[in-house]
Amino acid sequence: MATALFQMRSLVASKVSRGSVCSLAKFATRSASSAVVKYSKRGQPTQCLAMESEDVNLTSLGATDIAVQMIAAPINPSDLNMVEGSYDILPSLPAVGGNEGVAKVTGVGSAVKDLSVGDWVIPANPGFGTWRQAATGAAADFLKVPPSLPAEYAACLSVNPCTAFRLLRDFQELGEGDVIIQNGANSMVGMAVIQMAKARGITTVNVVRNRPQGQEVMQFLKDLGGDVVCFDEYVNTYRFERLMADLPKPKLALNCVGGPSAANLARALGPHGTLVTYGGMSRQPVTLPASALMHNNVTARGFWMSRWNREASRAEREAMVAAVAGMMEDGTLDLWVERHPFADFAHALRKASEPFRFRKVVLTMLEN
Amino acid sequence: MATALFQMRSLVASKVSRGSVCSLAKFATRSASSAVVKYSKRGQPTQCLAMESEDVNLTSLGATDIAVQMIAAPINPSDLNMVEGSYDILPSLPAVGGNEGVAKVTGVGSAVKDLSVGDWVIPANPGFGTWRQAATGAAADFLKVPPSLPAEYAACLSVNPCTAFRLLRDFQELGEGDVIIQNGANSMVGMAVIQMAKARGITTVNVVRNRPQGQEVMQFLKDLGGDVVCFDEYVNTYRFERLMADLPKPKLALNCVGGPSAANLARALGPHGTLVTYGGMSRQPVTLPASALMHNNVTARGFWMSRWNREASRAEREAMVAAVAGMMEDGTLDLWVERHPFADFAHALRKASEPFRFRKVVLTMLEN
Repeated sequence: MATALFQMRSLVASKVSRGSVCSLAKFATRSASSAVVKYSKRGQPTQCLAMESEDVNLTSLGATDIAVQMIAAPINPSDLNMVEGSYDILPSLPAVGGNEGVAKVTGVGSAVKDLSVGDWVIPANPGFGTWRQAATGAAADFLKVPPSLPAEYAACLSVNPCTAFRLLRDFQELGEGDVIIQNGANSMVGMAVIQMAKARGITTVNVVRNRPQGQEVMQFLKDLGGDVVCFDEYVNTYRFERLMADLPKPKLALNCVGGPSAANLARALGPHGTLVTYGGMSRQPVTLPASALMHNNVTARGFWMSRWNREASRAEREAMVAAVAGMMEDGTLDLWVERHPFADFAHALRKASEPFRFRKVVLTMLEN
Repeated sequence: MATALFQMRSLVASKVSRGSVCSLAKFATRSASSAVVKYSKRGQPTQCLAMESEDVNLTSLGATDIAVQMIAAPINPSDLNMVEGSYDILPSLPAVGGNEGVAKVTGVGSAVKDLSVGDWVIPANPGFGTWRQAATGAAADFLKVPPSLPAEYAACLSVNPCTAFRLLRDFQELGEGDVIIQNGANSMVGMAVIQMAKARGITTVNVVRNRPQGQEVMQFLKDLGGDVVCFDEYVNTYRFERLMADLPKPKLALNCVGGPSAANLARALGPHGTLVTYGGMSRQPVTLPASALMHNNVTARGFWMSRWNREASRAEREAMVAAVAGMMEDGTLDLWVERHPFADFAHALRKASEPFRFRKVVLTMLEN
């Protein structure tokens, strides 16, 4: 299976064999008819989300606004949580689904200086609604990305890879030879962490849940550059302790699972280490041994990309996007995605809802 | 009961009605016979601890050493955990019990500059063994305290009051009008926190376990200056939420319980708040809602006085001891202790082992 995954990865990365072209809408100079996936009540995504046609008025483009055509947008778990009403940011209804994606600028207001027609942009904030073909919005609500990126990569840049980037920057000074440990290592964030850490000479200890095709996942993460890969159960064993005894103690633990898995990470940390929680896949609280906190001076913190974006300056956000885009361009960072035409939204949604997803489902609205 | 407690407190604080004088040993110029409580195996304190007589050789006092007579020493829960073998620092056996206490300097080596005969000192490190009458040791292993303090206060200064002092200094910038929340508020640390916070104009929300005489404990903490006092169960209710809505959000939460009680504190914290764990009375791990960490940017840290002492400079430690002693002298900080003659060690040990202790048991070796 690892080989198959690698082949699929290279297909996407080399932009070979692109899927069907999406051309649901005809764009005119003054207005456009745009297909859009909306929901007007919260609940089961398959029941609440529906594709509609919507007129986008381009005649009244404000001086500081831009018009865009969406190129590609992923279906993230958090997008579905928003539809269900279980996410911490909820837009008012009716709302357009999707929070991430890449768009092409098709028109700029008279006062817009930093963006030109043809530029690629990503939404600067969640809640914009990316599952659509055309839209207008304030230029300030978008960040520029290089159009040389694969569109699917640009579409998925702002949440998972940026989270990995921040996790490796904001909590511990890390350098060559330092060790970090993470659970949920096969998540898209986890895979980005492995690659970014490897490029900096940081050793990664990667913990994954034992699940169907678990051995293949382990092999895949090793091939990706993960130095140690093991199952959650193994972290509690004497063998794991012996394995870790040969390494410097981890300075950073990245937790997206919670419960006992988080406790295991906390126990593995060295003195003055930091455990950062950026997700709660097990839906269990973060459980920390008091001794890790008191005697080992471990600090537990949280990270949430949306909060970081809200609190950061535009310059900080632009610098982060440029750095991550650079890693995509120079080959440091690969993503694992599968493309689905926007017109087949219902099918794509079913794929995105399958358990044990490996590749992220990305909708393509426009062939770039 | 609250009135009775107040009366007992004033008895101690005003040094009225001291207990029986302890004079098990006769101190000679060159040597002393000292009663000492030792253990040579780990286990049940009542079975392992025994009082012995020991000769202290004062003829060979090293140039940098001092000789001391113990004045008073508490029986702390952590002292008993050490005997049981369940503490994180364990002295080699046989060992003298007790880690805290105050002593009078009875002799100084030729190179000792900072200490003189008659000075009062406390051990700078755990493991010295304070349940004895006389001892010698390196002058560097002791810190000076003012002899104007009640001896029982000086004996209990270095662990609980210093912990409270650091908890209120090292984790959040706190000023007048700020709010903190703590569980185990009726512990000796908790009571010191209430008093030190009150003196700085900091509002305290104090959570206690519902237990025998719980109402009296609540009233006592209110009389002590606790702004809000309530039971653990109450923290989960809508009423508590309404109560807290009238206050600024807490910046600091102090946890010595763990489990769900810690989770309640974490939930009550405001954005960017800190939860500090300095004990684990429930013997349950610290449970934190992932949302508090991720969305509210709560940080969870640990504090352990022994670790702080190990890592701090002598100047930092002297400054802390002077500040806390100052609070005892100017009436900011009262302690609740009961005196037992060292000769009645077995009785004092039984008292110290009773559940729901309110006052700390202090052994008196020497009437000052």
